[in-house]
Amino acid sequence: MSERTDQTTAGILAGIKTPGDLKRLDPDQLVLLAAEIRDFLVAKVSRTGGHLGPNLGVVETTLALHRVFDSPRDRVLFDTGHQAYVHKIVTGRQDGFDRLRQRGGLSGYPSQAESEHDLIENSHASTALSYADGLSKAFTLRGEERHVVAVVGDGALTGGMCWEALNNIASAKNRLVIIVNDNGRSYAPTIGGLADHLSTLRLNPGYERVLDLVKNALGSTPVVGKPAYEVLHAVKKGIKDAVSPQPMFEDLGIKYLGPVDGHDVQAMESALRRAKGFNAPVIVHAVTRKGYGYRPAEDDEADCLHGPGSAFSIETGKLLAAPSVKWTHVFAEELVAIADERPDIVGITAAMAEPTGIAALQKKYPERTYDVGIAEQHAVTSAAGLAMGGLHPVVAVYATFLNRAFDQVLLDVAMHGLPVTIVLDRAGITGPDGPSHYGIWDMSVFGAVPGLRIAAPRDAATLREELREAVAVDDGPTIVRFPTGSVAADLPALRRIGPVDVLREDERKDILLVAVGAFGKLGMEVAERIAEQGYGVTVADPRWVRPVPIELAALSRGHRLVVTLEDGIRAGGVGEAVASTLRDAGVDVPLRDLGVPAGFHPHGSRAEILAALGLTAQDIARDVTEWVSQLEDRVTEPQPQA
Amino acid sequence: MSERTDQTTAGILAGIKTPGDLKRLDPDQLVLLAAEIRDFLVAKVSRTGGHLGPNLGVVETTLALHRVFDSPRDRVLFDTGHQAYVHKIVTGRQDGFDRLRQRGGLSGYPSQAESEHDLIENSHASTALSYADGLSKAFTLRGEERHVVAVVGDGALTGGMCWEALNNIASAKNRLVIIVNDNGRSYAPTIGGLADHLSTLRLNPGYERVLDLVKNALGSTPVVGKPAYEVLHAVKKGIKDAVSPQPMFEDLGIKYLGPVDGHDVQAMESALRRAKGFNAPVIVHAVTRKGYGYRPAEDDEADCLHGPGSAFSIETGKLLAAPSVKWTHVFAEELVAIADERPDIVGITAAMAEPTGIAALQKKYPERTYDVGIAEQHAVTSAAGLAMGGLHPVVAVYATFLNRAFDQVLLDVAMHGLPVTIVLDRAGITGPDGPSHYGIWDMSVFGAVPGLRIAAPRDAATLREELREAVAVDDGPTIVRFPTGSVAADLPALRRIGPVDVLREDERKDILLVAVGAFGKLGMEVAERIAEQGYGVTVADPRWVRPVPIELAALSRGHRLVVTLEDGIRAGGVGEAVASTLRDAGVDVPLRDLGVPAGFHPHGSRAEILAALGLTAQDIARDVTEWVSQLEDRVTEPQPQA
Repeated sequence: MSERTDQTTAGILAGIKTPGDLKRLDPDQLVLLAAEIRDFLVAKVSRTGGHLGPNLGVVETTLALHRVFDSPRDRVLFDTGHQAYVHKIVTGRQDGFDRLRQRGGLSGYPSQAESEHDLIENSHASTALSYADGLSKAFTLRGEERHVVAVVGDGALTGGMCWEALNNIASAKNRLVIIVNDNGRSYAPTIGGLADHLSTLRLNPGYERVLDLVKNALGSTPVVGKPAYEVLHAVKKGIKDAVSPQPMFEDLGIKYLGPVDGHDVQAMESALRRAKGFNAPVIVHAVTRKGYGYRPAEDDEADCLHGPGSAFSIETGKLLAAPSVKWTHVFAEELVAIADERPDIVGITAAMAEPTGIAALQKKYPERTYDVGIAEQHAVTSAAGLAMGGLHPVVAVYATFLNRAFDQVLLDVAMHGLPVTIVLDRAGITGPDGPSHYGIWDMSVFGAVPGLRIAAPRDAATLREELREAVAVDDGPTIVRFPTGSVAADLPALRRIGPVDVLREDERKDILLVAVGAFGKLGMEVAERIAEQGYGVTVADPRWVRPVPIELAALSRGHRLVVTLEDGIRAGGVGEAVASTLRDAGVDVPLRDLGVPAGFHPHGSRAEILAALGLTAQDIARDVTEWVSQLEDRVTEPQPQA
Repeated sequence: MSERTDQTTAGILAGIKTPGDLKRLDPDQLVLLAAEIRDFLVAKVSRTGGHLGPNLGVVETTLALHRVFDSPRDRVLFDTGHQAYVHKIVTGRQDGFDRLRQRGGLSGYPSQAESEHDLIENSHASTALSYADGLSKAFTLRGEERHVVAVVGDGALTGGMCWEALNNIASAKNRLVIIVNDNGRSYAPTIGGLADHLSTLRLNPGYERVLDLVKNALGSTPVVGKPAYEVLHAVKKGIKDAVSPQPMFEDLGIKYLGPVDGHDVQAMESALRRAKGFNAPVIVHAVTRKGYGYRPAEDDEADCLHGPGSAFSIETGKLLAAPSVKWTHVFAEELVAIADERPDIVGITAAMAEPTGIAALQKKYPERTYDVGIAEQHAVTSAAGLAMGGLHPVVAVYATFLNRAFDQVLLDVAMHGLPVTIVLDRAGITGPDGPSHYGIWDMSVFGAVPGLRIAAPRDAATLREELREAVAVDDGPTIVRFPTGSVAADLPALRRIGPVDVLREDERKDILLVAVGAFGKLGMEVAERIAEQGYGVTVADPRWVRPVPIELAALSRGHRLVVTLEDGIRAGGVGEAVASTLRDAGVDVPLRDLGVPAGFHPHGSRAEILAALGLTAQDIARDVTEWVSQLEDRVTEPQPQA
């Protein structure tokens, strides 16, 4: 079956093209296969970067579930799809891993375009149980005898959607298997009352021994009739509860199996077969270790090599690329400096202290840092509470995840005029993690929130400056948003009008380029190209993009064309808002807005995606010169294109 | 103390100006006061409309908590603030109830401007515990010995935010009292596993009796040493669990007191005093009856007179206003008609079957209707699951509440291209319920969602038609949005271009009025006024506002000014999108966009609020004629206003 002959174990993996191939393996082969898969994962991800720790933890679980269930007839749903690599490996996509997360290559998340075995493409946590509830309801209503299996981490269970889903799953009573992949972590160790509860379940010392003791104790007492039965039943339940606590899920009415050793394929299979037989909602509690079987991951206390962003050394787990100054580091450093000066500054993270830079504050001021779990809604509204209590919270979150707390930002924070600063890392086009990780919505969606001010720094210096301006605001919320990756050299301003930095000014005033945030550099490159053709270009960085500085209206006057340039979706974006500001000021200078067009854009490097969207200096310069030359031809009556 | 002499009981209520006044009353007086408050509530709300059932249910709870705690030093937070009327009555605002929910009068929700005893102004459910977590953390960090008391309904506990908050409250271990006001309902009876669990707790038959039995049984057995202790402890716990199940909250690490009769002030006081003494998170489970003490409310099976919108008969509980055809009814009727034809149509409501009209579907097709609790996130993502399973779900929700599921609409539905239809009732300016109930965000916020189509019908005929068009879409989500209240007479079109209805056309083409949805009628009134001044006016209803019909570009040509008119916030709204569409088509006709300006606008009637915002035919006609005359004066160089 295998074409690889260099080592015996390689033969098994090479022969796995579909889940059906797994069903032919014997227990020993499964153990070998699991080891092969781990080697495969480490080898491949060490070259491309990607999610490693979570996938090393679900090898046996994935093998077991594909042996017990019949995908794609039965539907397998992975919450936070980055734990689906093993699933991809056993559903015919081994070859794709050489181009994992690269443009045109294998997605780092499930993808319906790749395989009929995939369903949920969203990478956001805590959604799978809701999909599963809907799917199982549909199968029931349509009379289809198909199973739905959802794999969800203990970290994701801290998200409110899971609670909403469990509440509904319990009452719907449909056929549905939930595998709780409990490794005690999200990125960092999972927090909260639920985590404590799961730990208690995990540490079950086996209650049978104690039960015997009680049986003996009661043996000498004559207990008869119905009350006696109740007593005995209660005693058994009581013992179980004292020694192996009754899981709270059963209080909701969902059956519970476990805990099961999630690295024992046989044990997992046996639990899943039992679960399958219930034809009702059931939780299988699999205890696993994130990064299992690869020493550098197991030893990584921060996040078990959750997701190295690029190639790393297999021996050490360390990234090969030379370290550079990231936006995150600049933010983290400045936040600590501000916190040194102001005791009212506190930090909040939704289970991502390291990736968002909050870890630096946490290290120095643990009592002033709150990790709320994967719970963006709570992060924002508890920040409102902290602000009501006289503090100034800084909520640090990836831009894409703030979308989960729109209503909370709008009503709980902005409507109450509370001083909460939200710091959006990974704003704009991010890259390898694909469409659901793009931070391109914030300036549109949160632009509709009255009283909310949004800053978009263009470099390290303006990030530090705008962060300080943001935490100085005491009558409403602020957002500071910046992109992923390394921060380029500082781009100094010629002068400042209100909040607006003028970065370039020519004698002729043909075109005003309004370049938002990190697109400042791109704007300057575009300006150079246009200027080469004889046009005079002004480049302005508004610094604060919501509300739009009224100074842009004055700056626009005398120009023949205003062009806005933003690293966010065009619909409702800064471009539209600048246009609206000019209209309200009665300035009818023609305007064109450039940004990310409507759509869910694929994964790839940030540079590749921007190029594909026409957001390069070359493309933009061509567009702008074309527009301005059309204006030259124009008579009073508008002459629409084509 | 009282100025009212008609009945003895009136004396007590009239003397209550601050919570401190409550502390001087004896038990008998408290019982009389509770009865007086009920009479007061029924009398006042029967004239103004407002939230009745929930407030009748929390009379004793509110009295008890204000006797035990010291507001505003201790902070009292009401989840879904519509249950704060009694709180308002005992904090000096009795006089305000004559103008409850009227413009300039008392708000139907807590309001910081009204009283130092108020804090959360947001009316959306399930937020209070998150605020409370933040507040108690702030008090702890600042070393302030103050209590935080949150009152939350069992219905609101079905919302995921409560889960996120409980998880954090449990691990923070700060001083915090949570009163679960358990009346078994939100609007309708609370659904789900949690509701079943609370019922079990509620039906506690008292376990002490059984415990005695076991003590006797074990009495004859010699049990000594540590194992014996464990056995006894386990037995006690077991009995408690079998007869009075251990509440799941304790699994999370939150103390639990109850169930307590929430209509017994003494019992509630005693429980709250114990809770106060814990100096740790504790839940007090108060069992109450929605509508308690007022027969028409108790007898109302639909929602216990949750919130009569206008004056009603005290005798019967029936509204006094003559019934009229509401937008909701038209939707409900058409949905059932469509469901008759298409077995794949299913309905989803988030605990609001009656107010959204889903009840009509539920009545005819109960197995095709899902009430998911107050859980908008789950409503949307379980709809995605249903759609993946081959059904076409219709999610009916108030416009303001869809904001809670932005991320789910964006990624779980739109990114997957799933056919889910979302019907937004109460879109636009709603009125008496104030800023957090306004449905003015949807066209902006959801306008940024790629592939999502939004319809805004202008009358009953177009609602029926556009709903049918929406459920016919099979490759992505649709929204159909309409306002609150009665639907006016149908407004027929002269002709249709693409999806766009032309409602009026003059020979001269000066102004194109793009009137969105229910503003179609307003647009026609504006047009008449402008036409009287000699201008030629075209009025167009785009019907589908996202994406903006490209036909509007063609229609704009030849006009001197385009004016858009929408019942939604301007920032990122349809006006900006129409402007963007025209720009992209190279049509630089000047445009002005009218809509709701940025801000959180106060309560009042819809007509009053629209008038205050300048959105009347008279105001708009004046603005438009002013703009068009400015354009006449204009030279090529733009001449900004002032």
